[in-house]
Amino acid sequence: MSVCDVVVMGAMGRMGATFVRLIQAEPAVFRLVGALERAGCTAGLANLHCEIGDDLATVLAKCPGAVVIDFTSPENSVKVARTVAASGNPCVIGTTGLSAEQTAELAEAAKKTALFFAPNMSVGLNVLLAVLPDLVRKLGPAYNMEVMEIHHGKKADAPSGTAIKLGQCLAEARGLDYDTVKRHARDGIIGPRTSDEIGVAALRGGDVVGDHTVYFFGPGERIEVTHRVHTRDTLAQGALRAATWIVKQKPGKLYNMADMLA
Amino acid sequence: MSVCDVVVMGAMGRMGATFVRLIQAEPAVFRLVGALERAGCTAGLANLHCEIGDDLATVLAKCPGAVVIDFTSPENSVKVARTVAASGNPCVIGTTGLSAEQTAELAEAAKKTALFFAPNMSVGLNVLLAVLPDLVRKLGPAYNMEVMEIHHGKKADAPSGTAIKLGQCLAEARGLDYDTVKRHARDGIIGPRTSDEIGVAALRGGDVVGDHTVYFFGPGERIEVTHRVHTRDTLAQGALRAATWIVKQKPGKLYNMADMLA
Amino acid sequence: MSVCDVVVMGAMGRMGATFVRLIQAEPAVFRLVGALERAGCTAGLANLHCEIGDDLATVLAKCPGAVVIDFTSPENSVKVARTVAASGNPCVIGTTGLSAEQTAELAEAAKKTALFFAPNMSVGLNVLLAVLPDLVRKLGPAYNMEVMEIHHGKKADAPSGTAIKLGQCLAEARGLDYDTVKRHARDGIIGPRTSDEIGVAALRGGDVVGDHTVYFFGPGERIEVTHRVHTRDTLAQGALRAATWIVKQKPGKLYNMADMLA
Amino acid sequence: MSVCDVVVMGAMGRMGATFVRLIQAEPAVFRLVGALERAGCTAGLANLHCEIGDDLATVLAKCPGAVVIDFTSPENSVKVARTVAASGNPCVIGTTGLSAEQTAELAEAAKKTALFFAPNMSVGLNVLLAVLPDLVRKLGPAYNMEVMEIHHGKKADAPSGTAIKLGQCLAEARGLDYDTVKRHARDGIIGPRTSDEIGVAALRGGDVVGDHTVYFFGPGERIEVTHRVHTRDTLAQGALRAATWIVKQKPGKLYNMADMLA
Repeated sequence: MSVCDVVVMGAMGRMGATFVRLIQAEPAVFRLVGALERAGCTAGLANLHCEIGDDLATVLAKCPGAVVIDFTSPENSVKVARTVAASGNPCVIGTTGLSAEQTAELAEAAKKTALFFAPNMSVGLNVLLAVLPDLVRKLGPAYNMEVMEIHHGKKADAPSGTAIKLGQCLAEARGLDYDTVKRHARDGIIGPRTSDEIGVAALRGGDVVGDHTVYFFGPGERIEVTHRVHTRDTLAQGALRAATWIVKQKPGKLYNMADMLA
Repeated sequence: MSVCDVVVMGAMGRMGATFVRLIQAEPAVFRLVGALERAGCTAGLANLHCEIGDDLATVLAKCPGAVVIDFTSPENSVKVARTVAASGNPCVIGTTGLSAEQTAELAEAAKKTALFFAPNMSVGLNVLLAVLPDLVRKLGPAYNMEVMEIHHGKKADAPSGTAIKLGQCLAEARGLDYDTVKRHARDGIIGPRTSDEIGVAALRGGDVVGDHTVYFFGPGERIEVTHRVHTRDTLAQGALRAATWIVKQKPGKLYNMADMLA
Repeated sequence: MSVCDVVVMGAMGRMGATFVRLIQAEPAVFRLVGALERAGCTAGLANLHCEIGDDLATVLAKCPGAVVIDFTSPENSVKVARTVAASGNPCVIGTTGLSAEQTAELAEAAKKTALFFAPNMSVGLNVLLAVLPDLVRKLGPAYNMEVMEIHHGKKADAPSGTAIKLGQCLAEARGLDYDTVKRHARDGIIGPRTSDEIGVAALRGGDVVGDHTVYFFGPGERIEVTHRVHTRDTLAQGALRAATWIVKQKPGKLYNMADMLA
Repeated sequence: MSVCDVVVMGAMGRMGATFVRLIQAEPAVFRLVGALERAGCTAGLANLHCEIGDDLATVLAKCPGAVVIDFTSPENSVKVARTVAASGNPCVIGTTGLSAEQTAELAEAAKKTALFFAPNMSVGLNVLLAVLPDLVRKLGPAYNMEVMEIHHGKKADAPSGTAIKLGQCLAEARGLDYDTVKRHARDGIIGPRTSDEIGVAALRGGDVVGDHTVYFFGPGERIEVTHRVHTRDTLAQGALRAATWIVKQKPGKLYNMADMLA
């Protein structure tokens, strides 16, 4: 396998620095060929021994074929997509919070270059999302489905976006409308559970990176499927795996985790 | 150890029949000496080979020293307490839902005979309630506390009474007021967790008898304490253990699980 | 849906009595039309209000189309298979411990009547066995696989047959030979784990019916898939589900759980 | 609360660097006043803005009252103990693998200065070790006890030292000899479990920092007590908590986690 050349956006930021560290730790697989920061902030990049700068097009002119990895902001990611569409570099975007319009811009750029986009880069979680529908269908409707998640105390929303995505995945596999069957909080005299409803409960505390459990409660038995992340490195690892995969794909669609894990 | 003589109230009911079965399964420890049912329903007791009837005082006249076990209804349990106060028989009551007035009546009867009362007879759960305060105090305030419970789909209230009791136990051990710090449901933009709050989440499904987990989330580590019941026999086993203990106690106070496990 | 007529073998035994109870609890789905016990033991069947006897062929002559459910012994199950092959009744066999020769006899009978055979009737566990290979392949080789099981203290063998079956399922999905990669016990200075090995650990205690967990440990994340049985009723429920399915199948192969859940 | 002055041994090493980072992150609680490395390796300490050097006595002469934190090697820790015994600085040692003789040297030094020593600095785990004996005694002998642990694939020994310590804690609380009742691996036809035996099982995989679970299996119920560490920072956090505690203690005994959590 040839070494995968990588250009990191926001290389001094939290995620960018993680990418730099993980890339340097695996010289047989990855090579850091470019690093970008905002104008005026590139001084710290000097010791990275690669092309540096604050303008992506300029850097990419010296890094043909390298994969761009971008975990910055929705606005910036749209610009990155336009730039790689012009340069032809493959690209992996893991930014969260994009609007439908912004996602559509990524899809437009994906017509011209190999572009990968996933707001949750955990391989394990995406594999679960790919496998759970089959589990739901094989178990049949006698099994009640519930979701529980745990996150650190600073998280402002509940349930987590990933828990909701799991709930939607379960509902869809059973032919149900998630917004109709979801039960995001149970408190007081709630009455007997209906067979369709999907409870989603959130716990908060400490510095838990993210645990999610899907429960299937059947007659005298149950299945529990738990995913635990214990370091944010996991998300970067998923993006790096995507980098080695996207370089082998052709333009034409906006690729996601399900494509890679198919 | 001498055999423990037992009189079972409501011996044809679900819990009563469980007591009869468990007593007969351990002849070296227990002997069924009396069984009661409501007037007109005593025919089914004939094959139990013990004193039978619908009036407790009449049966107890023939069963001096036997322990009465009662899991019937609040109204009936108060009557049972008055009867054993007069007869001097020790007694174990596991009925749930008693009002403060009804509990006070049990305490009154406890002045005259050895009386044990616990609405949750699980030994494991009561041991946890006894040990958790020490755990809370030793961990100190840096550990966020949360409670999660799972029950069958027919349960009408959430969170379970036991989950609330666990939450109260945690709050009290840290000098907090449970009603102030409880968070029974989290949904939407909840903002960062405060260090004092105690989240309590409820899952529902299948025929789960009852799971409860207490979480302590600290810096880079966590403790999870889980109690699982997989058969209702457990509650009957706890009451039978209480029966062997109450026969050795003197009247004077209304005994509970904490007394037995001290 | 029409009601499913059932004939229960060994109706006074532990599993047989469970079938009778569950069938009677769902009159809209099942009807007990026949019950058998060994010669001299049929007296206890009198109050079941169905065809009773100690000879299956004789009973089946009065129960055309009914499904025979058999959880007796290997020798007896072979006889049952021959009898239904002659009568044409569909049949569900859940007996464990059959030799290869005895299983071959069931396959022979399956050419003539619709015959279902599964030594573990848990729907949940069989669904996991059907879904895990896809999970293994999608995760890829970077995830270490381990199995843990818990059973009651009376179980004489370790690891459980089901844990071994799970381990074999994982190994096969990754193209490994289970007997080469299994690690049934780790103790002492074992050295670093190899990426292929599959550890299988057994805990014992109390009256646990059966818990199994499969772990996938990856970079910074893990997936845990747990199956818990809390009552033996579950196995009977699986067989009754098979009964409603086998009546719709044609003779020709010995059906199993994977066929039903496909 | 006044700020706690700290001197870090081996400040460029993995644990030392963690201490420096955590100390700098909490300026209201801690202040880094000294940092040491081996002779010839002190250049990297220059930007720490504190006393630096390769000789502890020399540095301590400028840091009266500061707590020395040492996670180096058994040989070096003994030297550190002698030095603080002479200087009177309080000291926290978390080095593992000390011989009985080396531990005795620490105890000797503890007569002259406040000295804290714990080979496992996890607050959560030490709290469990302090609380479990009470749990064991209150549950009584009807509950079967087992231990399970999970560690990363590079760990060479099984079960972990901490799992063995948990097993010893359980055995002692029940008046049993651990070496007699331990069952470190179950494989094959093991026969029924004896009520006294304590099974200890080890799983290995990925980069798991360390999970430990203690099980209590009783009649129809169980208790599971799990401790999970997801970052090595936890051990450093425990040592820093010990630092704030040891400054308030008097010389006279070699303090440990149990003393601090009492």
